[in-house]
Amino acid sequence: MKIGFIGFGEVSYHLSRLLSNEEILTSSKNRSKRTIRRINKSNVEVLDDFYEVAEKSDILISANSPQKALPIACKYANIGHNIYLDLNNINPHTALKISCIAGRFVDSSIIGNIKHEPVLYLSGKYCDDLKFLDEYIPIRIISYKLGDASLLKMLRSIYTKTLAAALIETTEIANSLNLKKELLKTLNFTEDENFINKSYSRINNTKKNSQRKKEELEEILKYFKDYDLTMSRATLDKISQYL
Amino acid sequence: MKIGFIGFGEVSYHLSRLLSNEEILTSSKNRSKRTIRRINKSNVEVLDDFYEVAEKSDILISANSPQKALPIACKYANIGHNIYLDLNNINPHTALKISCIAGRFVDSSIIGNIKHEPVLYLSGKYCDDLKFLDEYIPIRIISYKLGDASLLKMLRSIYTKTLAAALIETTEIANSLNLKKELLKTLNFTEDENFINKSYSRINNTKKNSQRKKEELEEILKYFKDYDLTMSRATLDKISQYL
Repeated sequence: MKIGFIGFGEVSYHLSRLLSNEEILTSSKNRSKRTIRRINKSNVEVLDDFYEVAEKSDILISANSPQKALPIACKYANIGHNIYLDLNNINPHTALKISCIAGRFVDSSIIGNIKHEPVLYLSGKYCDDLKFLDEYIPIRIISYKLGDASLLKMLRSIYTKTLAAALIETTEIANSLNLKKELLKTLNFTEDENFINKSYSRINNTKKNSQRKKEELEEILKYFKDYDLTMSRATLDKISQYL
Repeated sequence: MKIGFIGFGEVSYHLSRLLSNEEILTSSKNRSKRTIRRINKSNVEVLDDFYEVAEKSDILISANSPQKALPIACKYANIGHNIYLDLNNINPHTALKISCIAGRFVDSSIIGNIKHEPVLYLSGKYCDDLKFLDEYIPIRIISYKLGDASLLKMLRSIYTKTLAAALIETTEIANSLNLKKELLKTLNFTEDENFINKSYSRINNTKKNSQRKKEELEEILKYFKDYDLTMSRATLDKISQYL
């Protein structure tokens, strides 16, 4: 099976490594030096441009950014006869728009850390055609309803960001009282054994990537604007303090 | 050792059961029917009044409510020659006041569920006198600084309440989209194996006890008023929706 990647960032890089027995295609046309280095490190066939990638792929994966998802779909989603997979953390509105362009579109999101036991969520009526990927990465077919995979990723994202914001708030108070380590040990009593390491990583990751986290959250809040978002809005305020 | 309880609510009841080899004292004077039933179910010596309990105890435990902590201490903390243990989720200011009244005061808090593997946190200079309790319940001596056990309990309380509020917010959105169970499974990927059950219990417990949770949080926020409390204040707003 030929699997093409439009964009070759972190997600594509790690995913392509997982898909070890498949033929991976991409292009380095107009790519950054960093991306080209990543491509050269990988076992990938490099084509002249993404038009060719789209044309030759049985499965075409777009992994870029939420903002680029739609323009990329417009350019490449209806060239070949492939299944089009979007991994851009798009919202269900965008998923619906892309499904109108692409022949066979699967709404998809990666849950968990791409470097460490990620799970591939799928939704939409062409999910079953991707079941074979289970050989490489655990697949979870959420439903045949387009958008459900995106919705879950967004809701999960609210939860994990709120958790990180709560950890930041409480550990900063604790730190000023010389009780930070003790607080994390205390929280650990009712959490799993790896809680302390995970907490440090959540705190640091949120502070380090506050701009991206903020933008992601803003998009999510826009989508869920008709719901009560007390916690989500506070999380946005909190993250914004670290820009 | 004679261990006296002033007040015999849930915490006293379960703690007295753990202290199985010690002589437990309390009084049923002016107690509610429910408390008297609880006392009768326990292996406790029932004295005429709390004055007598205070007088005869080697360790005197006050487990009532934050509001009653100080008045009770004023009444009973300097009667006998006991170690006075406060389990009322007081803040460090109140701990300091009580320490001025009681001869040997230990700041203390129960971390975790009293019914299920609780840990007894202790701070203050008389902690070491209570080391023997480790035979019955895991003890954690935080420091010899009065107030540290209370501080940790308060910070932990902010965290767990924020977590519950985040769960409520995201599962309510998910529920309206028929994705509640799937969302909890999704969150579970990076949490411990018991996450889903714990989440349901956190959500239900918060909604059911919203009035108490709100009051506890208000007290805590008053104490930490000089810190950034973006998340904590949002949690207070969120909990208040379920009064």
